[in-house]
Amino acid sequence: MSETTFLTELRCAEAIAREAGKRIELGRAHGFIIDHKGTNDLVTNVDREVETFLREQLRELFPEDELLGEEYGAEEGEGEANRRRWLIDPIDGTTNFSKGIPVYCVSIALRSKGQPVVGVIYDPTRDELFSARRGGGAHLNGAPMQVSDEESLGHAVVITGFPPVKTGDGFEKIVQRFGHMARASRGVRRFGSAALDMAYVAAGRIDASWEFNLNPWDTAAGHLLVQEAGGRVSDVNGEHFTPFGESVVASNGRFHDSIIKTFCEAGIA
Amino acid sequence: MSETTFLTELRCAEAIAREAGKRIELGRAHGFIIDHKGTNDLVTNVDREVETFLREQLRELFPEDELLGEEYGAEEGEGEANRRRWLIDPIDGTTNFSKGIPVYCVSIALRSKGQPVVGVIYDPTRDELFSARRGGGAHLNGAPMQVSDEESLGHAVVITGFPPVKTGDGFEKIVQRFGHMARASRGVRRFGSAALDMAYVAAGRIDASWEFNLNPWDTAAGHLLVQEAGGRVSDVNGEHFTPFGESVVASNGRFHDSIIKTFCEAGIA
Repeated sequence: MSETTFLTELRCAEAIAREAGKRIELGRAHGFIIDHKGTNDLVTNVDREVETFLREQLRELFPEDELLGEEYGAEEGEGEANRRRWLIDPIDGTTNFSKGIPVYCVSIALRSKGQPVVGVIYDPTRDELFSARRGGGAHLNGAPMQVSDEESLGHAVVITGFPPVKTGDGFEKIVQRFGHMARASRGVRRFGSAALDMAYVAAGRIDASWEFNLNPWDTAAGHLLVQEAGGRVSDVNGEHFTPFGESVVASNGRFHDSIIKTFCEAGIA
Repeated sequence: MSETTFLTELRCAEAIAREAGKRIELGRAHGFIIDHKGTNDLVTNVDREVETFLREQLRELFPEDELLGEEYGAEEGEGEANRRRWLIDPIDGTTNFSKGIPVYCVSIALRSKGQPVVGVIYDPTRDELFSARRGGGAHLNGAPMQVSDEESLGHAVVITGFPPVKTGDGFEKIVQRFGHMARASRGVRRFGSAALDMAYVAAGRIDASWEFNLNPWDTAAGHLLVQEAGGRVSDVNGEHFTPFGESVVASNGRFHDSIIKTFCEAGIA
């Protein structure tokens, strides 16, 4: 049964995400140590401890599945051939967490045969659990949620992020795109957690999000949340999205092509 | 006693801000009506009702003081000569509120003889009350708070906002400044509530904020919060700040001049 509905996997991911969130908030209260992965790329002992917790839980519950996570990379499961893979991010928004900005989340996704089938994002600071399974709709703390009904980019509130590496042509383009969208939309937000951005699109709070240079564990859960909430997810050219690609545009679906067109016309897609 | 310490005024402002926050959350739960003041400038019936509540409370408690607020403008009190003036913003972050983005706050400030003497910012979505009175330090839910100890702009997380009017040279400069700071700092945030931005600087969560084209009720409370938390507030040229001016830079004080210099060197101050 669970192989087709993924209900067991969803409930397990929800429970694990909530428990991980508790551990994050304990870490926040008790103090933590910051390491630098790169100039602007941080990690704390809490990220590592919570990722270990997530791995141990998932390994025990689903020993045949693969695991892919931010702090410890890929890990081959015993049954790679069945093509089920969990993508986990213990803290999406580590810079915020390390500064005491209460804007970060746990992200857990399961992909099966190249499709997202379970997506869970948990914001422990607000106790908000965003979750979805393929074909089962999307929920916020158990209540059905859906994308907004905003019809035009000009009235939309949109959100984005910036990669930690700030050099080169790529970063210039990212800044240009920000300026372009600041003019084209009602307003741009930048919270600092790509996964939470997509959860907010799914919840109808934000009308669209876009971002470049993300890692697969940043978008894998949000991808399904937005789809199951009635929205659309593509790459920056409007083509098929995969979390292993280089860009994401997620929206309520009503003015998605306007975003793609805006980037394209500006010559910065 | 209260004329010199402003403790009575602080406690009254705290109580009123909390009650206003309750009313905002009730309005959010029960539904509200959105009006447009300008293309991207919104107001809801909740803003108006809460401003009326704030005015009635302050008028009753301090009948001789002046009142200045976002939705109903200035109102002369009976005793203008004593130069005490309350600046109130029922919902700072109305666009967020109207979209269901839980990032907005109540802002209440008292200025006396040209100085900020009481500042209260309340985030009803997190039940966080940031408050200060002149010489009495700054507090978050009653616990002392202070600005961060980040020493350099390069490692700082900074925050800003954009005005609702997006035409003309002014808006281009604002976008340019954003790009400049995105390169110069660890990261830029953009939450959509100027008052809350300053409260987060005072709480040490964000290292600095800057913004242009604000109204006096957006910055009047944050001004004192940042000062009493040990930070610095100036205009974009590093000169004396007043909430009736056109720009604000608020920081922990340790790299304030670097921000001013960054804007100046870019020719976009």
